[in-house]
Amino acid sequence: MKIFSIAKSRRLRSSPYTSRIEKQGVTAYTAYNHMLLPSAFGSIEDSCDHLKKNVQIWDVAGERQVEIIGNDSSKLVQLMTCRDLSKSKDGRCYYCPIIDDKGGLINDPIILRLNINRWWISVADSDVILFAKGLAIGKKFDVEISEPDVNILAVQGPKSFKLMENVFGNEITKLKFFGFDYFEFKGTRHLIAQSGWSKQGGYEIYVENTNSGLELYDYLFEAGKEFDVKPGCPNLIERIESGLLSYGNDMDNNDNPFECGFDKFINLDSDIVFLGKENLKKIKLDGIKRKLMGVQIDAKEINVSGSIDLNDENNLKIGELRSGCYSPHFGKVLGIAMMKKPFWEVSQIVKIQINNQTFDGKVCDLPFI
Amino acid sequence: MKIFSIAKSRRLRSSPYTSRIEKQGVTAYTAYNHMLLPSAFGSIEDSCDHLKKNVQIWDVAGERQVEIIGNDSSKLVQLMTCRDLSKSKDGRCYYCPIIDDKGGLINDPIILRLNINRWWISVADSDVILFAKGLAIGKKFDVEISEPDVNILAVQGPKSFKLMENVFGNEITKLKFFGFDYFEFKGTRHLIAQSGWSKQGGYEIYVENTNSGLELYDYLFEAGKEFDVKPGCPNLIERIESGLLSYGNDMDNNDNPFECGFDKFINLDSDIVFLGKENLKKIKLDGIKRKLMGVQIDAKEINVSGSIDLNDENNLKIGELRSGCYSPHFGKVLGIAMMKKPFWEVSQIVKIQINNQTFDGKVCDLPFI
Repeated sequence: MKIFSIAKSRRLRSSPYTSRIEKQGVTAYTAYNHMLLPSAFGSIEDSCDHLKKNVQIWDVAGERQVEIIGNDSSKLVQLMTCRDLSKSKDGRCYYCPIIDDKGGLINDPIILRLNINRWWISVADSDVILFAKGLAIGKKFDVEISEPDVNILAVQGPKSFKLMENVFGNEITKLKFFGFDYFEFKGTRHLIAQSGWSKQGGYEIYVENTNSGLELYDYLFEAGKEFDVKPGCPNLIERIESGLLSYGNDMDNNDNPFECGFDKFINLDSDIVFLGKENLKKIKLDGIKRKLMGVQIDAKEINVSGSIDLNDENNLKIGELRSGCYSPHFGKVLGIAMMKKPFWEVSQIVKIQINNQTFDGKVCDLPFI
Repeated sequence: MKIFSIAKSRRLRSSPYTSRIEKQGVTAYTAYNHMLLPSAFGSIEDSCDHLKKNVQIWDVAGERQVEIIGNDSSKLVQLMTCRDLSKSKDGRCYYCPIIDDKGGLINDPIILRLNINRWWISVADSDVILFAKGLAIGKKFDVEISEPDVNILAVQGPKSFKLMENVFGNEITKLKFFGFDYFEFKGTRHLIAQSGWSKQGGYEIYVENTNSGLELYDYLFEAGKEFDVKPGCPNLIERIESGLLSYGNDMDNNDNPFECGFDKFINLDSDIVFLGKENLKKIKLDGIKRKLMGVQIDAKEINVSGSIDLNDENNLKIGELRSGCYSPHFGKVLGIAMMKKPFWEVSQIVKIQINNQTFDGKVCDLPFI
């Protein structure tokens, strides 16, 4: 695979932690919400292995917040997602597909309810802020919409719990999965959620006070020495094994939430008002024509930079691979694929071309682990 | 300067031309509208020099189109820009600041009027499509909004005119600056504008038929041999010398169009309805507090990956550099800077830190050339 450098500029914004991770050995970036998001510190295999056993600190400032404040904030947030938020609670995170009036996906953020009139939409890579502004202007909603200067630090891995307890005290161990609260570090309060873009467990620290965040960053590495802490980033192998979907990679505006397996986040039966509701009802009635599934391939490497056709034995396209990696744990290539009906059944055989060679694969459920 | 690689994935979409430019020696990418945009083929100094004398073919598929069709399309397009489009004509391109209800910039696209009910907004790097969708839904406008599969090829440089005449015939020489029309290549019609993101002259081919576009791509290199054609991309040095602004680099949502010198594209006196009009009137009345200007610095290199403070002789911040490069033509570093009032006057002295050394610079008008 050829390597290309990333051309830096102000438009691909650095985070407060960028100079630190560059000293610590980041080797590759991607762009995410117009920011630099680290994507490798050397070998992603080694990093995956380390993440599963220890604890890592991640600069995920690219997960930007869309803050929506005001009397109509609940109405606007609900309008954008098919998930029923009418019984949502302060201090909780909600994974919510954001969809347009056609039912096409626009993003798949975590939504944090700070209070009934103040929400943070912690977005994947698309300008949800512009969608929210357009809707609010058009509907004359009483809201203020902004991107606050919040730069998330994720602390991920099985030893993250002990490390965070040592830093923030025993109180933080009471935080439930997808709950958040404020915890103090040297006199500064930080919003911390039990969440993160891995299945290894951990926390996300929504840093609003940059100076305190930088001090905390350094302190986490000091206090983490006994747990073999390392810098890291969302790991391609770990996230695919865990079946964590990535907006723009595994699904985009041409896909609807049923096709992506988001059924439990689609609430069509309640009275809530959201965009695309009638279209989603029709899609549900008609049934979907394709579906995101896992694929296991008998190959030793893959580099996915776009959709790769998955064919049947007659060379007919029956699906497309959208993400993939070699998993040392499985000894196979794992992929996330949009499969056409009826080829999405588990054990369906697929053929795929990798580096001009044909390999066999099998459809399976997500997550792999 | 440390070099980091770009992590490819489906989310940073390739263009139809990506495999070609990778064979032709692209060395660096940036991300632009969720696509890979080439940013260097080796030395940008050499590439700049070549561009000024010859002709280059650019993969600028990252300049995506937001297509707006329907009875309310004119109303929606006008709502988003402070430039008066009421006297616009079919077959013409218009440089238009897109602003929100506060008067903050959202994008600075070229808008193409295909006809009164069909527009293409050829966007810089932000999801204008989501803003347009939000507004259209909120206002219940009768429009269809989509991102068509258009992948622009730019043909830039002084010899582009002769090359394009050889390929498309004498008719194309009649095309005026910022005019567009359809021209045939081997039986397929292509929309071609006399435009492009350099000041060296040239065309942009809005390729809708991908197969014909690929054939055309190869043909342009064949027919261009006599003009020493080379692959290229928007060139940092050339665009700064020419004062071509870059959204996200030189200005963003925190800036208003007056601060960016877009006065002639702000039409406050007509009856047209657009967002932020009252705010812009107030800004005009109060006067701006800062302004985009050029800066010439007595240094031999600079790498700009974020805002760099510009100070006065007492170490007081008087502005910030947002883009910059070393220009062999000027023998200096040239930069684009947001200067505070009253320090935006031509010949104002500034101090800047580059690689831990202090350099002197002088404010000047844009463009440099």
